[in-house]
Amino acid sequence: MGMTIAEKILAAHSGHTTLTPGQLIECQTDWVLCHEITTPAALRMLEERGMDRVFNPDQIVAVPDHSVPAMNIKAAQMYQKLKSWVKEKGIKHFYDVGRGGIAHVVLENTGLMKPGQTLVSGDSHTCNAGALGTFATGVGSTDLAGAIYAGMVWFKVPETMLIKVTGQTQQGVTPKDIVLEVIKRIGADGANYLVMEWVGDYIDNLDMEGRFTLANMAIEAGGKTGIVAVDDTTRAYMAERGVTPDQYTEYQSDPDAKYKVMVEVDASQVEPTVAYPNIPSNGRVAGSDHIPVTHAYVGSCTNGRISDLRDVARILKGNKVAEGVQMIVVPATQLIWKQAAQEGLLEIFVDAGASVSYPSCGACLGMHSGVLGPNDVCISSTNRNFVGRMGDPSAAIYLASPATVAASAVAGFIADPRAYNHTLPNTSAQVTGGAAD
Amino acid sequence: MGMTIAEKILAAHSGHTTLTPGQLIECQTDWVLCHEITTPAALRMLEERGMDRVFNPDQIVAVPDHSVPAMNIKAAQMYQKLKSWVKEKGIKHFYDVGRGGIAHVVLENTGLMKPGQTLVSGDSHTCNAGALGTFATGVGSTDLAGAIYAGMVWFKVPETMLIKVTGQTQQGVTPKDIVLEVIKRIGADGANYLVMEWVGDYIDNLDMEGRFTLANMAIEAGGKTGIVAVDDTTRAYMAERGVTPDQYTEYQSDPDAKYKVMVEVDASQVEPTVAYPNIPSNGRVAGSDHIPVTHAYVGSCTNGRISDLRDVARILKGNKVAEGVQMIVVPATQLIWKQAAQEGLLEIFVDAGASVSYPSCGACLGMHSGVLGPNDVCISSTNRNFVGRMGDPSAAIYLASPATVAASAVAGFIADPRAYNHTLPNTSAQVTGGAAD
Repeated sequence: MGMTIAEKILAAHSGHTTLTPGQLIECQTDWVLCHEITTPAALRMLEERGMDRVFNPDQIVAVPDHSVPAMNIKAAQMYQKLKSWVKEKGIKHFYDVGRGGIAHVVLENTGLMKPGQTLVSGDSHTCNAGALGTFATGVGSTDLAGAIYAGMVWFKVPETMLIKVTGQTQQGVTPKDIVLEVIKRIGADGANYLVMEWVGDYIDNLDMEGRFTLANMAIEAGGKTGIVAVDDTTRAYMAERGVTPDQYTEYQSDPDAKYKVMVEVDASQVEPTVAYPNIPSNGRVAGSDHIPVTHAYVGSCTNGRISDLRDVARILKGNKVAEGVQMIVVPATQLIWKQAAQEGLLEIFVDAGASVSYPSCGACLGMHSGVLGPNDVCISSTNRNFVGRMGDPSAAIYLASPATVAASAVAGFIADPRAYNHTLPNTSAQVTGGAAD
Repeated sequence: MGMTIAEKILAAHSGHTTLTPGQLIECQTDWVLCHEITTPAALRMLEERGMDRVFNPDQIVAVPDHSVPAMNIKAAQMYQKLKSWVKEKGIKHFYDVGRGGIAHVVLENTGLMKPGQTLVSGDSHTCNAGALGTFATGVGSTDLAGAIYAGMVWFKVPETMLIKVTGQTQQGVTPKDIVLEVIKRIGADGANYLVMEWVGDYIDNLDMEGRFTLANMAIEAGGKTGIVAVDDTTRAYMAERGVTPDQYTEYQSDPDAKYKVMVEVDASQVEPTVAYPNIPSNGRVAGSDHIPVTHAYVGSCTNGRISDLRDVARILKGNKVAEGVQMIVVPATQLIWKQAAQEGLLEIFVDAGASVSYPSCGACLGMHSGVLGPNDVCISSTNRNFVGRMGDPSAAIYLASPATVAASAVAGFIADPRAYNHTLPNTSAQVTGGAAD
């Protein structure tokens, strides 16, 4: 019987030729991604058991991102722990504050993570890397400890959901709207422990940045990971990072691969979508209701890339953030930050009355740099709108695309970005490279 | 008998023709500056007494700066309190997040605060504005409450210390070094309750940004305020902000004015000075000892201006922040941020491996965006190195000029900036205007 991409990658990493969903396997991890929030707990487990080692210092990527630069002494200690471990173990790929950014976005851009590989991290949005045709998933600190120690992790082989997206979107509709539409349809538990495999001519035509946004949000439907098969777009992306096809393995799902369920989406029918509080599946058309906002946030591993910042700049250029609205723009990495500076995007943001932050996870998870207070209302390009996610439990979080966030910041209430159609010069350059490695 | 500038300003604001140091006066406040940390406590006092009013909404300047964008829910509430009060009272001059920055630096740049005026704020670095030939000082929340309510505050008329600085500094020596040298000589209590009046040809030749740095640090010697007499430099600065001499009053100290003490400094003999832990008077020559650093911080109301950022960029250009050093650059206001972006300075910082923050007081007082952990060692362009000021009590803080911070960041240990002599093109533009008022 045929196999899916995910099944093929897991088989290749567990010494099997075929695999059946539900099967328990021990899987090799090509990469372990470590940030300063969940890694210290894993290291403590290893230390307490006299197992304080790393399977291979060259296959670990360490990136502090959640609580840096530190917003309190405890955060400073978490950062210190990661940094001293990196030094002690000779971890090769360390992207320190000022050289990195949000771990998932740093990693996708390095060329380290290659198609066909496996990745685990103590972070739920690890699925982001699935856009490169990899099997990438978040694990708890216990499994993270095992992966750090042995380069192995156990999985129950997941079934796969096929999501076929056809047609082209209207101007102003972005991959974020597509994935919010899918989650709206299937529910926030609609892909529980399933691989979400994205296919269709919409995906074929989509750039890597959009694919990362789709893969990134898999966990918001309960998915084990998101995945997009390797094609010329993937190959070109890897080539720009100095990685040639002989350095990686491409997997394609077999024509007779078995899918648990298939979802079909006509992209041309998708409208700018806003996930209302307090669950990402609560999607409605942007601007359906008059909802004044106090905060507008652009950033996160989901939507802090250069294309996202360009979308925001197109709308903010020549406009002002509405009085009473606090807008924060957080480029996801230092490289994206620099690219945005070079293109003049950051000046556009500041001119409009937005604050531009250093790269970090920041307020996406209510850690710093824009935490919400009681009854605040935030339109956000992030990935979760659970109660208290960005701060006070009484604050309301509306998830949307960067374009919708920008349009709403200007309007002062949640607005439809299709009313805006600005263009920017010189916005085709790529952000490439691995920063100071 | 002759009077000093400070005595003349206080006399004019208290209905006296002459004043004697030690005299208690009720003084009119032309301006009250309010940020989100000390203002809520003052407002609560007024509310509890049924005195919830403002003396004049057009003479209050409100600028959230310490804990914005919020790093926790409590900070978000402080911000909300300031914002709702501004709205309720119709406070005219509100510089919201994204439109302002560090309150003292926002204010100095607006043209609102004019020579000869008085200012109080619930913040010790209010003395900053004395560089404009004003009487500006920090007060506690109780006096702040009185000023908000009545536009009045009581003072004991201070005596004045005359600081005469002559000659020109060596390349690499800045106003921060001058003031650290003065505090080293007189001690951190050397100017207790004194006005520090700066004169001499060094001051005559100094631009306004340097004068703000000198006035700003008065409190670090215990001074009631710092002050520089109005001259052509001041007049030109005001004119750039649309303020002509007929709109303000110039005061000069009389030739026979009485000074409590006079300090003379030969600027040519001052070396790059670093205040060692844990007191600003603990100055030594930069590079005297080999002191590795973990953090390098550029920012604050003392040294986050465009000239400071240019000093940093000159040294960072073509260099890299040393491995293991976390460098953070915090432009003091959105206008400075934008100017630095336009000049390409921010790209230089990011290229070198520094993080660029939104404007805020941030880690200067250990609130967020770079709080120090146990045993961290920070070289900082800020104003205080007391135990625990920037985070953990075991962290060591070394105060220095932005140039020394940059040189140290590159070296990885506290270094003498005179080893660097880079130049930058197009760095003469001014930052002018009041942002979105």
